Amino acid sequence: VKGGFLKVLAGEPVWPPPLWMMRQAGRYLPEYREVRSRARNFLDFCYSPALATEVTLQPIRRFGFDAAILFSDILVVPDAMGRKVSFVEGEGPLLEPIGVDEVEKLANPEVVLQRLGPVYEAVERIRGALPVEIPLIGFCGAPWTVATYMIQGRGGDRTPSRLFAYRNPAEMVLLLDRLADASVVHLEAQAKAGANALQIFESWAEGLPPAAFQDWVVRPIRRIVDGLRQRGVTTPIIGFPRGAGLNLQNFAGLTGVDGVGIDTATSIKSARAILGDRADGRQIATQGAMDPQALVTGGATLERAVQNTLAEIHGVPHVFNLGHGITPDADPANVARFVDLVRSGT
Amino acid sequence: VKGGFLKVLAGEPVWPPPLWMMRQAGRYLPEYREVRSRARNFLDFCYSPALATEVTLQPIRRFGFDAAILFSDILVVPDAMGRKVSFVEGEGPLLEPIGVDEVEKLANPEVVLQRLGPVYEAVERIRGALPVEIPLIGFCGAPWTVATYMIQGRGGDRTPSRLFAYRNPAEMVLLLDRLADASVVHLEAQAKAGANALQIFESWAEGLPPAAFQDWVVRPIRRIVDGLRQRGVTTPIIGFPRGAGLNLQNFAGLTGVDGVGIDTATSIKSARAILGDRADGRQIATQGAMDPQALVTGGATLERAVQNTLAEIHGVPHVFNLGHGITPDADPANVARFVDLVRSGT
Repeated sequence: VKGGFLKVLAGEPVWPPPLWMMRQAGRYLPEYREVRSRARNFLDFCYSPALATEVTLQPIRRFGFDAAILFSDILVVPDAMGRKVSFVEGEGPLLEPIGVDEVEKLANPEVVLQRLGPVYEAVERIRGALPVEIPLIGFCGAPWTVATYMIQGRGGDRTPSRLFAYRNPAEMVLLLDRLADASVVHLEAQAKAGANALQIFESWAEGLPPAAFQDWVVRPIRRIVDGLRQRGVTTPIIGFPRGAGLNLQNFAGLTGVDGVGIDTATSIKSARAILGDRADGRQIATQGAMDPQALVTGGATLERAVQNTLAEIHGVPHVFNLGHGITPDADPANVARFVDLVRSGT
Repeated sequence: VKGGFLKVLAGEPVWPPPLWMMRQAGRYLPEYREVRSRARNFLDFCYSPALATEVTLQPIRRFGFDAAILFSDILVVPDAMGRKVSFVEGEGPLLEPIGVDEVEKLANPEVVLQRLGPVYEAVERIRGALPVEIPLIGFCGAPWTVATYMIQGRGGDRTPSRLFAYRNPAEMVLLLDRLADASVVHLEAQAKAGANALQIFESWAEGLPPAAFQDWVVRPIRRIVDGLRQRGVTTPIIGFPRGAGLNLQNFAGLTGVDGVGIDTATSIKSARAILGDRADGRQIATQGAMDPQALVTGGATLERAVQNTLAEIHGVPHVFNLGHGITPDADPANVARFVDLVRSGT
């Protein structure tokens, strides 16, 4: 496996930029919806190596993206740790909110590894089926984001998780550490099964006070990166702290990641100016940040959105992507046009 | 009227910093809930000069804040422009979503002025009742935020408003301009009735692509500031683009505001480094940005939150405030402690 995506993660600019889309294996594709309908529920879907393999490959076949991303979910980790997780159609994930005294009862990393066997089997199958030049991305949720779901029982405004952390600082540290340690083995297993890059999704980084951002976002991500490196995993790591805003200050240096995902609201140039240096002296790689709504609107809006992003990334190591996942109402024809526009590089 | 608050808005550092709280007249106060229960519904409450005056004064009496803010709502403007606005207990505001062809039917600024007479009467009464040294803040919603409510029919994720803007760029410009022009006369009338400062709340600035932020946030706020200055209104203006993140780059210079509200997620120091210069050459004033959840938690969390904010504002013109409105579950005893901590300045 080689290609532009891994070059960029190594700090080398590539033109035209490598391209993939968050949620590229998703509901906007009719062939995805067909496969989805074969599974009883969303978690079964994630735990079926055959189905997960099929939907992971679909967008590669249809659009020829420069990277594939494992079809899975960030909530398989709390599920494997023994929390009740379900997905209600149209409502998103629902969990049984965790109590303060339940944190220490969470399953340990060995149990997580065993329970998530089907995920690593999917990674192996996908790696075997993918063209050799297309890298495969494995992933996990960042501890704060996963903790948010575990505490609130759902996504959303993060007030309950902030209050939990303020009121129970010791238990919050324990919860974040447990999640980081489970994430280390989960990502390591994906890398061993064939993943060529790893992404840590911090979907709920937004709205956190700067001091809390350091404690709840930066420190746990650093723990994951250090844990992987200590175990000899050299796979490049992308951190994506969505909504971090000015908390991106020195995010690369503080966490040790190789690449940083940039959200819709953030100028790539401004972000690169404050992200800080990589420990290995290479240029930080960035990834993002086009508004997925441009793929819903299409036409001149889409062209302008591609141009705005391209204009920011000349000469720097950047992976073209969206700033958030593609939405189910996007037209696949707009995605095809999008790929052409990015590939033309103008 | 003089005092620290207006000095800071003029660019002079003051120590200890002047202090007020967003939503200081609100549901966390039992005396507020008592007055609120006298009005049939929330809009009636806003349009009752007697009740609005009473609740505006309550937190000044109880805590001695350094500024009062008119009790009103940003949605009185679309209400006065002829849109259906209601407030459902526990659900927030609900509006009849505006259609593309309805934008040009919105009532003009003269009608808005006439319909909002009770608001200006409240401003006059409050100004008459307030101690002479306590400044009164008038306000409006920024056009993008108000348009978001008008398009979606509610607050929330802003995807419908982004799509509306992408699909109907001309109508979006028209809607934002109409709202800016109505806001100019609305703020001018508040200033004439006795408001000593004006705040423009851009509550939904978060998540906007940088180009869209310029078109939908910066340009309309600039239109309001220019409109007021052209009409001879010299009252200082604070813009509060909540969630702007790196889009704060040169926000002061681009909009012409005298002060900028800083949200919970943003380091005041980092923000001041990128806000840019005021047109008049004075230092930009900032305001914010403590996490309101610290007032719910109290204790050591509250002390640390106050200290973190104080540590960022030594020697710079800053108004101590929250980064978001105080929530109904905050204990007034924590607010009293908060005031003492800020006043002690350590």
